[in-house]
Order: sequence, then structure tokens, then C-alpha cells
Amino acid sequence: MKATIERATLLRSLGHVQSVVERRNTIPILSNVLIEATAGGGLRLMATDLDLQIVDQIDAAVDTPGATTVSAHLLFDIARKLPEGSQVSLSAAEGRMKVVAGRSNFTLPTLPRDDFPVIAEGELPTGFELPAETLKQIIDKTRFAISTEETRYYLNGIFLHVADGQLKAAATDGHRLARVTAEKPEGADGMPDVIVPRKCVGELRKLLDEVDGAVGVSLSGTKIRFELGRAVLTSKLIDGTFPDYTRVIPSANDKLLKIDPRSFMQGVDRVATIASEKTRAVKMTLDRDRVTLSVTSPENGTSTEDVPGEYTSPGFDIGFNARYLLDILNQIEGDLVEVHLADAAAPTLIRESDTSSALYVLMPMRV
Amino acid sequence: MKATIERATLLRSLGHVQSVVERRNTIPILSNVLIEATAGGGLRLMATDLDLQIVDQIDAAVDTPGATTVSAHLLFDIARKLPEGSQVSLSAAEGRMKVVAGRSNFTLPTLPRDDFPVIAEGELPTGFELPAETLKQIIDKTRFAISTEETRYYLNGIFLHVADGQLKAAATDGHRLARVTAEKPEGADGMPDVIVPRKCVGELRKLLDEVDGAVGVSLSGTKIRFELGRAVLTSKLIDGTFPDYTRVIPSANDKLLKIDPRSFMQGVDRVATIASEKTRAVKMTLDRDRVTLSVTSPENGTSTEDVPGEYTSPGFDIGFNARYLLDILNQIEGDLVEVHLADAAAPTLIRESDTSSALYVLMPMRV
Repeated sequence: MKATIERATLLRSLGHVQSVVERRNTIPILSNVLIEATAGGGLRLMATDLDLQIVDQIDAAVDTPGATTVSAHLLFDIARKLPEGSQVSLSAAEGRMKVVAGRSNFTLPTLPRDDFPVIAEGELPTGFELPAETLKQIIDKTRFAISTEETRYYLNGIFLHVADGQLKAAATDGHRLARVTAEKPEGADGMPDVIVPRKCVGELRKLLDEVDGAVGVSLSGTKIRFELGRAVLTSKLIDGTFPDYTRVIPSANDKLLKIDPRSFMQGVDRVATIASEKTRAVKMTLDRDRVTLSVTSPENGTSTEDVPGEYTSPGFDIGFNARYLLDILNQIEGDLVEVHLADAAAPTLIRESDTSSALYVLMPMRV
Repeated sequence: MKATIERATLLRSLGHVQSVVERRNTIPILSNVLIEATAGGGLRLMATDLDLQIVDQIDAAVDTPGATTVSAHLLFDIARKLPEGSQVSLSAAEGRMKVVAGRSNFTLPTLPRDDFPVIAEGELPTGFELPAETLKQIIDKTRFAISTEETRYYLNGIFLHVADGQLKAAATDGHRLARVTAEKPEGADGMPDVIVPRKCVGELRKLLDEVDGAVGVSLSGTKIRFELGRAVLTSKLIDGTFPDYTRVIPSANDKLLKIDPRSFMQGVDRVATIASEKTRAVKMTLDRDRVTLSVTSPENGTSTEDVPGEYTSPGFDIGFNARYLLDILNQIEGDLVEVHLADAAAPTLIRESDTSSALYVLMPMRV
């Protein structure tokens, strides 16, 4: 194998590829990127952690077609440090890959391309296209709610399914829920319900920053593939059952607070300054057209802030985890947010309006 | 105590003060900042870790003079989150301090001002002024070489002394040495040799970013005080004997390499990509008008890079810790650096020229 690539092209592609590769691997070849110089010209880079796989195609002048595998992080670090604008020559022979650019020479150990594991996609019967912008929204508005508790593995991703003639995405950690709906794309009918793992979501989101237009999505009950320009991301799906989250979304909360999300967020952030690291509970005292936010900490004293809002129901107190409340308010883009409350112990519904595609449910805390 | 301050003024001052305060303290009052509203107007903020003390004066409208102490990090975080341009009212009574700004109210626990420890400066017989720019240079060009080994406490700071009619600063960790000279300021005659601790150096450097003109320096054999505008930093000095570093500076190194510090640095950085975390040794092979940099790593392969330079002595090989070499080259501002070598085992002298105020000594590694 022998090929020459622009340093910037190589660096960008390795940037995609190396973040799929885990820093520590018990199987040595999983630290490597598979580099394949194709006879038609161009390079194919591939990396995997056995659950998630990325394949990227880049332009290159190929002298000798062939393939090898080499440490992904090392090659990325080398490409990062090479001078801007340089041409990088890669050539592999006898268990080594030579990297030459300008006055710099590197000889890196390789592992045979035949040992490189490939995720068998199998049949992916459902296929559709989604605008990159829609996919970004789905991810941005739900991923913060993904659970990190490994024992509840079925919550460690974004749940994607078709219902009520819409494509729906949901994530929850049991304390808060985020749900986004999008127009059902053509071809999504009969799509199985799937849970896309957190790491796939993260890598997908990074790649989305570099594409416009449509993203091709193909999936079965066990695998999902995203085609973004010349990059293809394939992931195993989480083998579990996502809970019936619709039952958690309250429909009869009869107390409505309408409030400016910026002032609300800044107020919560300020009063939470004195909250202890452990609980981070903030109390909301609802009164006619006003919310009083307050925190009492045994070590740090007390804080209060009044935020004006539209509220006409009977006054009462309710507590929330400040961090969770901020995460949700951070997603609100408009000038008004609706907080639908029932009582101090009931799930609270937060959304921009009844027509917005995103809604959030937050469990209260005792304060 | 009651006073009103511009939020930006308070924030900047707390920024200086809070970084002296350690995150964890066994003595509770050391977490606090002493705030004193003076009858003449203005606020005096003070913080200490018992070795280092900062006092800062800021403008404020004082209603009731008085003093109290309150958590420095907490008050800093609050000031940070308050709206830009707001006026902050501080009032202390009955073991509490109220902080009010706009719609926000905080009540923070206080500790009595009388319990706040003050470093007794004693007599500081030596006093002089140094241009802020000179003091910055002294710190920037030496601090990277300060030892972090706590057992060699007498190396955990910058050694300041007067010799040969100059003010000299040196730092070393036994592997490398940095020394800077400056014009001896008026009043420095008879100054004791002192070791300024690392933390004092760090805080001083931050404060220097905000002052122009001259910095007042006063010292005895045990304490040093820096006056920077309205801020005063006082530190205990390290009670130890700095080794006679002049004996380490080679004077008979007869092999001279003159080289562009940028190309040299980039070359070292690139070949070191494959160095193992533990040793980070880079080999320099000196040849007529050329240096070949190389690294061999059992896991990661080999790397080499040629860098052109002016060299006419007999060729030989010498190894250095890449990190240490980069730290030194990073300090070189000109287009040429002189590397004075003797042999593969001897200390190497690095400087811009024989007239430059800074010089560096680096111990080689076996490669």
C-alpha cells in the first residue's frame, strides 16, 4: 500500500475515526484504524469498538492499492503536528507503515488488515432520509436526559420509534424525560422501536456538524446505519425494552406558569450557587404572577430571587433539582416557556407551547 | 457593615482574592475572605492560606463601616452570576451577611473578623521597585523549572538574589535550570538571598497581568511583599538553602549548535509523538550543519526528523527529555538559539546569545 494525502484531509478524517476508538483496549487491534488504499484512488478509513463502527472515504493519490491497520490515536497525533499544507505519504510493507511528510519520518507498527473486526450489518430493511437539521434537533433536545446508570442499560440511549404518524425520540433517566417529535419520513413505516446507544449519539452529533442536506438512515431491530456525506456510522442497538414513557407525560396538570426562560434560568442558576453539591434542590414558591426561587443550605445560608411570570392558579411550593431544571431550560429557544404543574409531588410538564416538537417532564424533589 | 459596590469591581477583586484561598481547609475561617468597609469609603478584601496573603482595595459606597468574613469561593461564584452592570449591596449583622443585587437576595454565614489570621510582616528592611515587565520576564522564564518534589522543598520556588551587581532569579528541579538576570534596582543592595514559593509566584503572575508601571518589592529574610497598584501580596519565604546553582552552569562546553528555535521545537514535538509517556527521551544526532532528531519506542515504532542548523564540531549523539527541551525552547523569543554542548553525559547550556538575560541548563538522558 502506498498513497499520498493532503494533511488537512487526513487530519479531518482521523478526527472522526479516532474518537470511536477507545483509549484502552484489551484487544490490541481495536486501537487501530484500518486504512485501505483503493485501486480506483482514494482512501477508506475505518475504526470500531465492536459496538460502533465508522467508515470514512477521503481523496488521496494511490500509487499501490492495499490495506493495513495502525494506531488511530498515534496517527491522529502525528497528523495534528505535521506542518499545515504538507503532503503526507503513507506506505505499508513488512509489518510497518511509513509516514513521511516534509523532513519528518515515522515508522509505525501495524497489525494485519485481515484481523480487523467488521460489524456484520445484516439486513437493514427500514431506510429513510432525515434532514441533518432535524437529526441535530432530535439529539440536542434529548441527549442530556440519557441515563448514565449502567444497570439500567435500556435507558443508556435515545429511544426512536414511529407512533401517531410521527417519528418520536425520547430519553430519560427516571428523573427527567425529554421527547421530540418530527415529521415521519418516507420509508419509516413499519420501523422497529430502537434504542440508539449514547456513544453512537455522540459520534453522530459530531459528524452532523460537518454535513448539510440529508442523512441516510437504515436500520433493523439490532443495527442502525447513518450515511453522512462520505462517512458511514454503523452501531449495534441496545438490546432492551424502553419503558412506556407516554404514561409518564402528565395530561391533566391544571396549574400553568408562563415565564421568560432566560430570567427563570438565570434565577435558578443564581440561587443554586449556595446549594450543596449533593442535593442541588431549588424551591419554587408560586404566587400570583410571580415565582420565588429559593435555596436553603445548612452550610452556605439561604438565597432567594423573585422572577415575574404569568400565574393565576392557587399558590403552592414545589422543589426541583436545579441541574435538571437548567438542562431543560437551556433547550428552550423562544421567549416563553410553559410550566404545567399539578402538585408538589407530581411530574411537571415543561414545553414552549402545545405546538412545539419538544416536551420535557421533570420529577419534583421534596424541599 | 453596609456598603454598595459595582458588580464588575467586586468580581475582579474577588477573582484575585479567591485563588489564594485553598479549596479545602481544616481551619474554617481560611475559606473566608475578610471584607472591611472603611469609614473613609472603599472596601478592603483580604484572604490568606497562612503562608500567602492578599489585600486588595476597591471603590465602594460605604454606609456603615465595619468588617466581617464570608466564604470567598461562594461570594465569588455569586458575583460571577449576578447580572452585568448591577450594583451589589453587602450588609453584615448578627453572624450573617446579606448580599442583594436586583431581585436576588443571599444570606451567607459569617465568621468573626477578629478570628481572621493576619501574616505578621515584621520588618522588611530591603525595598525596591521593579518594572512590572521585568518581573513578568523573571517569572515566565524560570517558573517552568520549579521543582514539584515536596521533599526538596528548597527547590519549590524561585531563588532571588543579588550577585555580580545584578538581580538574579533561578529555578531548578535537578534536571534543568533556568536563570534570568535583571538590572539591580536601587535599594536592592544587601538584600538577603530568598526563595519565593511557587504559589506566591503564580498569584503574583496573575496580578501582573493587570498592572503597568512599577511594582514595589519589600523583603526580609523570611517574608516578601509585592505592591501592585491597590493590591498587596505578602508571602512567607521558603526556609531553606538554595543550592549553589552557578556551579551547574557549564563554562567550557566547546561544541556549538546554532539553530532556529521554531523548527527545532516543532521537530522535537513531532518526533516525540511516539515517545512513551514514561521516558519521553529524544535523541539528537549532531552532524555537520544538521541535527537529526529521533525517537525509538518499543510499542510505537520510530520517528526521525532532520533540522538544519549551524554546527561544525565533531558529530555525536545526545539525548534529552523532550518535555524539558520543549519547555526551554518555548521561552526563546528570537530567531536563533545557541546550544552549547560538551559530550553525551554533560550538562548542556541553552541561550539566545551571550548577551541575553536568560540562560538554561539541561541535563542529558542516556539514549
